[in-house]
Amino acid sequence: MTSYTAPTREMQFVISELAGLEQVRQLPGFEEATPDLVEAVLEEAARLASEVLAPINKSGDLEGSRVENDGVVVAEGFKEAYGQFVEGGWPGLKFSPEFGGQGLPALVSTAVDEMWQAANMSFALCPLLTQGAIDAIEIHGSDAQQALYLEKMVSGQWTGTMNLTEPQAGSDLAAVRTRAEPAGDHHLITGQKIYITWGDHNVAENIVHLVLARTPEAPEGVKGISLFIVPKFLPDADGSPGTRNDVHPVSVEHKMGIHASPTCVMSYGDHGGAVGYLVGEENKGLVYMFTMMNRARLSVGLQGLAISERAYQQAREYARQRVQGSAVGHEGRVTIIHHADVRRMLMVMKSHIEAMRALAYVTMAELDMAEKSTDEAARERHQVRVDLLTPVVKGWLTEVGQELTSLGVQIHGGMGFIEETGAAQYFRDARITTIYEGTTGIQALDLVGRKTLRDAGRAQAELLADMRADVEALAEAGPELDEVHAALVQGLNDHEQAVKYLLGQFQADPDLPGSVAFNMLMLMGTVAGGWQMGRAALRARQALDRGEDGDGFYRTKLATARFYARHIMPRTKAYLGGALAGSEDVMSLTEAEF
Amino acid sequence: MTSYTAPTREMQFVISELAGLEQVRQLPGFEEATPDLVEAVLEEAARLASEVLAPINKSGDLEGSRVENDGVVVAEGFKEAYGQFVEGGWPGLKFSPEFGGQGLPALVSTAVDEMWQAANMSFALCPLLTQGAIDAIEIHGSDAQQALYLEKMVSGQWTGTMNLTEPQAGSDLAAVRTRAEPAGDHHLITGQKIYITWGDHNVAENIVHLVLARTPEAPEGVKGISLFIVPKFLPDADGSPGTRNDVHPVSVEHKMGIHASPTCVMSYGDHGGAVGYLVGEENKGLVYMFTMMNRARLSVGLQGLAISERAYQQAREYARQRVQGSAVGHEGRVTIIHHADVRRMLMVMKSHIEAMRALAYVTMAELDMAEKSTDEAARERHQVRVDLLTPVVKGWLTEVGQELTSLGVQIHGGMGFIEETGAAQYFRDARITTIYEGTTGIQALDLVGRKTLRDAGRAQAELLADMRADVEALAEAGPELDEVHAALVQGLNDHEQAVKYLLGQFQADPDLPGSVAFNMLMLMGTVAGGWQMGRAALRARQALDRGEDGDGFYRTKLATARFYARHIMPRTKAYLGGALAGSEDVMSLTEAEF
Repeated sequence: MTSYTAPTREMQFVISELAGLEQVRQLPGFEEATPDLVEAVLEEAARLASEVLAPINKSGDLEGSRVENDGVVVAEGFKEAYGQFVEGGWPGLKFSPEFGGQGLPALVSTAVDEMWQAANMSFALCPLLTQGAIDAIEIHGSDAQQALYLEKMVSGQWTGTMNLTEPQAGSDLAAVRTRAEPAGDHHLITGQKIYITWGDHNVAENIVHLVLARTPEAPEGVKGISLFIVPKFLPDADGSPGTRNDVHPVSVEHKMGIHASPTCVMSYGDHGGAVGYLVGEENKGLVYMFTMMNRARLSVGLQGLAISERAYQQAREYARQRVQGSAVGHEGRVTIIHHADVRRMLMVMKSHIEAMRALAYVTMAELDMAEKSTDEAARERHQVRVDLLTPVVKGWLTEVGQELTSLGVQIHGGMGFIEETGAAQYFRDARITTIYEGTTGIQALDLVGRKTLRDAGRAQAELLADMRADVEALAEAGPELDEVHAALVQGLNDHEQAVKYLLGQFQADPDLPGSVAFNMLMLMGTVAGGWQMGRAALRARQALDRGEDGDGFYRTKLATARFYARHIMPRTKAYLGGALAGSEDVMSLTEAEF
Repeated sequence: MTSYTAPTREMQFVISELAGLEQVRQLPGFEEATPDLVEAVLEEAARLASEVLAPINKSGDLEGSRVENDGVVVAEGFKEAYGQFVEGGWPGLKFSPEFGGQGLPALVSTAVDEMWQAANMSFALCPLLTQGAIDAIEIHGSDAQQALYLEKMVSGQWTGTMNLTEPQAGSDLAAVRTRAEPAGDHHLITGQKIYITWGDHNVAENIVHLVLARTPEAPEGVKGISLFIVPKFLPDADGSPGTRNDVHPVSVEHKMGIHASPTCVMSYGDHGGAVGYLVGEENKGLVYMFTMMNRARLSVGLQGLAISERAYQQAREYARQRVQGSAVGHEGRVTIIHHADVRRMLMVMKSHIEAMRALAYVTMAELDMAEKSTDEAARERHQVRVDLLTPVVKGWLTEVGQELTSLGVQIHGGMGFIEETGAAQYFRDARITTIYEGTTGIQALDLVGRKTLRDAGRAQAELLADMRADVEALAEAGPELDEVHAALVQGLNDHEQAVKYLLGQFQADPDLPGSVAFNMLMLMGTVAGGWQMGRAALRARQALDRGEDGDGFYRTKLATARFYARHIMPRTKAYLGGALAGSEDVMSLTEAEF
């Protein structure tokens, strides 16, 4: 019931035919990422995901983690699984060979990451956070820091964390109070951090905390925050874990989901100060942290997709096995997959998942090009696209993930509410994804503010033009795709109208961006997902016209694209209506009138 | 943080100004239900809800219930709370004085029920199921059965259960296998029932199980099911609990929510057969069960509202206290209620809750009129309206409840995912409401099948005409309500279009009703909710025009009605689009292609 099979066929389709593996392979360093290699990597990862990680997902949920003798003990089997994960070389898949990584494109490692997240989201959070920490050190750390930490982290021998939040400083990092006192070649860190994912554990020999703190003379607000490396054990002369640092887990939170992922309250400096090493320059910590954060946001978006895929697989299995009621045209009692409303729910799940995956992977290919293109203008162009799509991937994929994991429960009927099936766990686990690494509200503000208003809608206009060009191609693709074409044109118009409204009105109404942000994000996600479904349908149509059938794969793709166009795209009207209503009714009550 | 204050001002507004208490008071037996009496009842109930039931909601969630020595032990404090509940005479609020009840209209008792559900949903499930059992015996039981059971149940001394589901028989009751062998004046019942809410417990002295089972010669399918009374303890000569019957709790389920409500696997006849007494005639059990079921469906719809209100109160409180970030026009850091996106979420919650409450209470007033009108034609007319609205109240209120309790979590940010706050509990508890007493899919099929197609859309047309008349009145109510009027007219047109499409196409396409059912239910719920918000706005406008301000209450009502019209009503386009897309894309994949 709770097994997981990685959808490798679909992943390869998206990687090769939508995200453009061929193009990514032209980038320096990625030459070896051939379709054959990708296939081999996916198959190998799929095995680890289904055979090692998925089987301990439910037991981890039941057991959780606990603090014992100044350390966190994670659930049974997780340490062994992590050992196999490291042994297979998976932590370093996308990192530079300079530090022992395999240097694969983000496009490819994303598919693998999706598998970890789907198989065991609690487990996969450990490498997810480590990746962010590696990125920060690789981009902003000194040569010495890179030499000391990266190899160990890329191999998975050491893990990493991100320490941002404090009780009074959540979305608002300006309020960070953790202190960093200069002390020779290092600083002494004092303060408390909360919500630290995998903040402590017993699966690896060392933990490299990346911590936001203030130096004594730092200015107020976000411009006075610096970033520090605070290892759990200070590396000794030969780089091995030495002296225990003054950083300790206080407790693990009692959460609704991801029970096996230890969410720690961390205390720095209870015994005089934790030794921390400044990363880059003082007071630039927030900028550096955003390096980690933006990657992590894409990864959390991917979690929304992954947990939905897992919920879908289980609901599909249940719908194929559960016998209940009768159906037109069938003798006797039938499995519930024969009921139209169950079909509808499965189609909402399947078509969304395909759209989400395509959008996420396409964004990762943009990221590869933003980082590796030899042409500076191209790098910048792709980076603009990544920046624009990041809040959409994070926000829309995780919001849709709420709906899809809930449908997974619903398809199970009463069994969905019983914890034994696992459907409830996916629903509970998914609930964090719209919250951490910036809530949906924060993503939406990023989208309307930094990503739309700041460049006066230029990046949006460029994306719209690209989407329109792709959608136009559907007009000539045969009558079967006429309705897909029409629905997407309508959606693009809705999106454009919302952007224009925002650009035209925001100066006169300071509450407008915040009031319309959520609806704009959901509108844009729905449209961008539809765009990818349209592209997928076109590829499928072309393949069928060439006489390729792909074992029925392409026909199925036409069906899900049509479903998405006709059943999901009409949602743009609901979001557009909310956006065009502006701020007036959102802000009309006084605080007391609520 | 986890306190609850019953919204009595709003409840009285809905009872008096929308649902028509004056009209209900004209019905025989309801003469004493004056506004003053209603106010007194609500205030008294509000006290019990907030002082006795709400405080044990979270501890009940943490402790749950367990089977010990052939009996279920419920969480600490529940037995004492139930004692106070019985002592106050609350179980009998709406039942006939003939059996010791207080004979209040369903309209009034519904407001009180909302309080129990909001304060402690797990607790409130016990009287909810007992009410259903009382209804069944009162309507279908013999005089002797009524004499033996009703007084004890109405007083709350004994509780009741509904035993429908078996492992192979969930939504499909045709598959019920529990057997009932005739044995003189009674039957011997053998079989296993699952998902029995409050199936066993230690809070009352006896439990009256209403059980669906088959007699030996019964025909196959739903026409061979009979209804039996199976008391836990057989009443002795003077009606006191005597011999222990052969019915036993096997286990309690490990569920995602409502932990303090024991959901039992019940075994009948492990030791020869449980003594059961036939209710009414053989083979009519399903019809009788629907008496309980329809009431229970309205009650579960009410749960969707109640748990949303609870989630709203807590989110509002958190938003007023949590300091984070800055806002335009405010110095320094602000509470998050100043952020537009938080406002948006609170407004989505508040406006929906008002719409849901109005629709639920109006339906209950219809129920009162269906039962008590002196004119037979009037009774029938009101019953048709109740029948039409029941799946909408059950389906739409509980589906919206998913969204609103999720927003309650979201407003809390990271704290929402931590169990300590309680926001997570409301979200988990709410998750069952779209499943039990008939899933949303089952409600939707009831709406399109029995309630729309069977009378060729007559009941729908009558409701539409009534809604149009009310909405038309808004056209003359001043410019402030112009947009409300326009949005509701649009919504009514959308609903009418969907109904016409269904009526016109269903004969040619057997998959159509099931394919469009969910979207039609959500469309109709959204429109019916808007209709009530429109009526509320009109009452508020009239009150303001009379110079009544209601301490600002009426102004607030105009604001929420406007928000609902402009931000929520556009959703009808999404539902209409899905409905008009028909069955083609829903059914296009083969089972293997999923």
